[in-house]
Amino acid sequence: MPGPEQPDREQVTAEDAIRVLDHGFVRLDDAMADDLSVANAARVSFARRKEEMDDADRGLIGFLMRERHGTPFEHNAFRFHVRCPIFVAREWFRHRISSFNEFSMRYAKASDDFYVPAPEDVRTQVGKPGAYTFEPVDAELAERTRAELRAVYDAAYAAYERLVEAGVARELARAALPVGAYTEFFWTVNARALMNFISLRNAEAAQREIRLYATACEALFARHMPVTHAAFVANERRAP
Amino acid sequence: MPGPEQPDREQVTAEDAIRVLDHGFVRLDDAMADDLSVANAARVSFARRKEEMDDADRGLIGFLMRERHGTPFEHNAFRFHVRCPIFVAREWFRHRISSFNEFSMRYAKASDDFYVPAPEDVRTQVGKPGAYTFEPVDAELAERTRAELRAVYDAAYAAYERLVEAGVARELARAALPVGAYTEFFWTVNARALMNFISLRNAEAAQREIRLYATACEALFARHMPVTHAAFVANERRAP
Amino acid sequence: MPGPEQPDREQVTAEDAIRVLDHGFVRLDDAMADDLSVANAARVSFARRKEEMDDADRGLIGFLMRERHGTPFEHNAFRFHVRCPIFVAREWFRHRISSFNEFSMRYAKASDDFYVPAPEDVRTQVGKPGAYTFEPVDAELAERTRAELRAVYDAAYAAYERLVEAGVARELARAALPVGAYTEFFWTVNARALMNFISLRNAEAAQREIRLYATACEALFARHMPVTHAAFVANERRAP
Amino acid sequence: MPGPEQPDREQVTAEDAIRVLDHGFVRLDDAMADDLSVANAARVSFARRKEEMDDADRGLIGFLMRERHGTPFEHNAFRFHVRCPIFVAREWFRHRISSFNEFSMRYAKASDDFYVPAPEDVRTQVGKPGAYTFEPVDAELAERTRAELRAVYDAAYAAYERLVEAGVARELARAALPVGAYTEFFWTVNARALMNFISLRNAEAAQREIRLYATACEALFARHMPVTHAAFVANERRAP
Repeated sequence: MPGPEQPDREQVTAEDAIRVLDHGFVRLDDAMADDLSVANAARVSFARRKEEMDDADRGLIGFLMRERHGTPFEHNAFRFHVRCPIFVAREWFRHRISSFNEFSMRYAKASDDFYVPAPEDVRTQVGKPGAYTFEPVDAELAERTRAELRAVYDAAYAAYERLVEAGVARELARAALPVGAYTEFFWTVNARALMNFISLRNAEAAQREIRLYATACEALFARHMPVTHAAFVANERRAP
Repeated sequence: MPGPEQPDREQVTAEDAIRVLDHGFVRLDDAMADDLSVANAARVSFARRKEEMDDADRGLIGFLMRERHGTPFEHNAFRFHVRCPIFVAREWFRHRISSFNEFSMRYAKASDDFYVPAPEDVRTQVGKPGAYTFEPVDAELAERTRAELRAVYDAAYAAYERLVEAGVARELARAALPVGAYTEFFWTVNARALMNFISLRNAEAAQREIRLYATACEALFARHMPVTHAAFVANERRAP
Repeated sequence: MPGPEQPDREQVTAEDAIRVLDHGFVRLDDAMADDLSVANAARVSFARRKEEMDDADRGLIGFLMRERHGTPFEHNAFRFHVRCPIFVAREWFRHRISSFNEFSMRYAKASDDFYVPAPEDVRTQVGKPGAYTFEPVDAELAERTRAELRAVYDAAYAAYERLVEAGVARELARAALPVGAYTEFFWTVNARALMNFISLRNAEAAQREIRLYATACEALFARHMPVTHAAFVANERRAP
Repeated sequence: MPGPEQPDREQVTAEDAIRVLDHGFVRLDDAMADDLSVANAARVSFARRKEEMDDADRGLIGFLMRERHGTPFEHNAFRFHVRCPIFVAREWFRHRISSFNEFSMRYAKASDDFYVPAPEDVRTQVGKPGAYTFEPVDAELAERTRAELRAVYDAAYAAYERLVEAGVARELARAALPVGAYTEFFWTVNARALMNFISLRNAEAAQREIRLYATACEALFARHMPVTHAAFVANERRAP
């Protein structure tokens, strides 16, 4: 996968929701985000403020990005609603400069949706730690992988249901559920932390599954802050 | 000053700006904030979501506050524009879970506005560290204090101007400026961190000047998230 | 379980390691932590510093805790090495004011240790969300639960091994592994954030499994900062 | 000033204290920091741990730095004691991923130490915002600057003392004190955040005064984590 995936703006529906994987999505629940706020936050340094973007603002945003003046990119917020497999969520929740609220398998019954990769997403790893590359497997192994996963998921969920049915606390019965199970959460983050997330997760070194989610987030980000996004890309996709 | 100051909603103008001290203000530049988002963030635990607040939501918000479930209060943002004396800003910037961009005395010329307390705000401290109380001083000392401060401010600013005029770098000439000088900044913060700020700064132990700013922030907060604010007050003004 | 579990100092071995659950542990890898640093950090307010604790310091620490002066409790560090089930780690990693490095199932092969609760730890939930209580189940259901979990674990791990053996990337094959699987990580945290963790996780509302880990952390904390720990307990176990 | 200042290890005394400016210092009060902890934190990914550094560890640290795996650099702590002018402290306190406790001018009487630049440190700014360079001024202006600052400081401190003497609360009287006044604080920070501080503050774009402090911090950092410091320098002084 050479270079970052291009966010496809066509995928973005009127409701700001993008389907990802077999049962997941990224949906922008709300946002307080535009490029002008970046320029105005920076301009408070000079006690100046504008109502509309102009070319000077575009130049300023590029300058801030290049020179690593990061704080002007923090005066905004994106609230995402995400549905993804647990193993994706586990990587996501490592991003500490943001806010999470997740579906609780202590309080509610787990869903029976599990991630089964599309055949073309089943892959083998080549090389050594720190420098893996991934290649597709043949059709037979792809299908076998899907079947193995489905079998484990079915057996695990059946055991989970039997235990819950028998009265075992949900928080304990969930121990049986594979990390391929879907979870969902709200995620609120500012553009600076979001760019950091995108730079690490829509990248070659990232796992394919979270990369697809990061690509979706990037599309929604680019739509609300196009000048900032362009400056981020021009800056070799490094967050300021 | 017994108990927290009551935020006066009448002070809040159509533009969400409140005057504070002799040359300062708090202005809500933008917000993505309502009570419903708290309930919906909490309800993602059960994969439920609503479009309008009802009594169950009010009860839920009270429950979250009491039981210290803090994260549902983070999925929102307030962007304030603040003008205050440097000694107030220094306390304000200690609040790390938020974003700041400040007027720069390296890049721009300092303003010549300085804080001179109203006569009734000049006070003496009684008691010992950790348990000070403050009492008004007599009219003569109040006036003398104002005169002393004005004289220092005038002399300091005149020296600053002479140095800048003579070509000394602004970043160095500013060393002469007293912490009573006004500065301004953008501050973006979520409701959880904002409640923490308010609980510490609109409180008896806080310095009178920052308390007036915190009172203004509280009025703007209460206007956008009245149910959350009421739950905060009912919880003895402790942030969750 | 009425009130917090008492940390048992006898459990703490010479190596600062405490066994938890069937295959887990908490080990204090290193620490820069003592009570004196709290008093000295607070005393920088008065430009004073001591070499040894005395009664005034004990009083000061109690005062800081009660009055919610939290920052003096941050000038220290505990580095823990933890081994626990994934579902415990998922709650743990929600604590953002700290640092984590975890075993990677992308880079290395998953261990075949899984959490099987002791019979007396199998429980049923009574009541409704927000107010659950838990009660033991009868011996038969306890044993059945253990058997069900073991069967799922065995089947899942066998499938995982077959997939890895067949060449499927580890990062994908892991989707089959239940959240009862053990993981391990390093966790570095200061006393203020650690007290927040303990107050929430060694508490009645916490899940039994993470509570046992929090109890272990509390024992190690109490050993290095006994005065701070006592003040925390006296303050109704609320972090400042 | 071409390139970053070289930290001078000779300046570091046995007590880990370095004098900076006319009345300031940086002193390392305590540290839990070595290069091995970086390698071990990273190796928990593979469940491996060592007691001594070897060449593989050095290579690993370089790899982590280049590939922006930042978290292994967080499992350590440096506690600094700093004395610097207020205008330097104001820039310092913008670094939120760290802990501060500062001398309080509310609780204690301000010191009468103020920053007067050495003649060769008096400078003029050339160019425009975002691209300033600084050049020395002639001897006469340097001396005049020092005299102007001294006069303001003396007048301000005399007014402050008169007000405090007359009974005005210290927290209010301090409004007269210039930002050239010295303050002191404890600062606790991990290596990752410290590298971020150094990369921004021991840099050409930083103000000369804070740069000297950052240079001192860098010398102390390099002494405790020489391999990490070398990797940081090799990585163009960008924090991971």
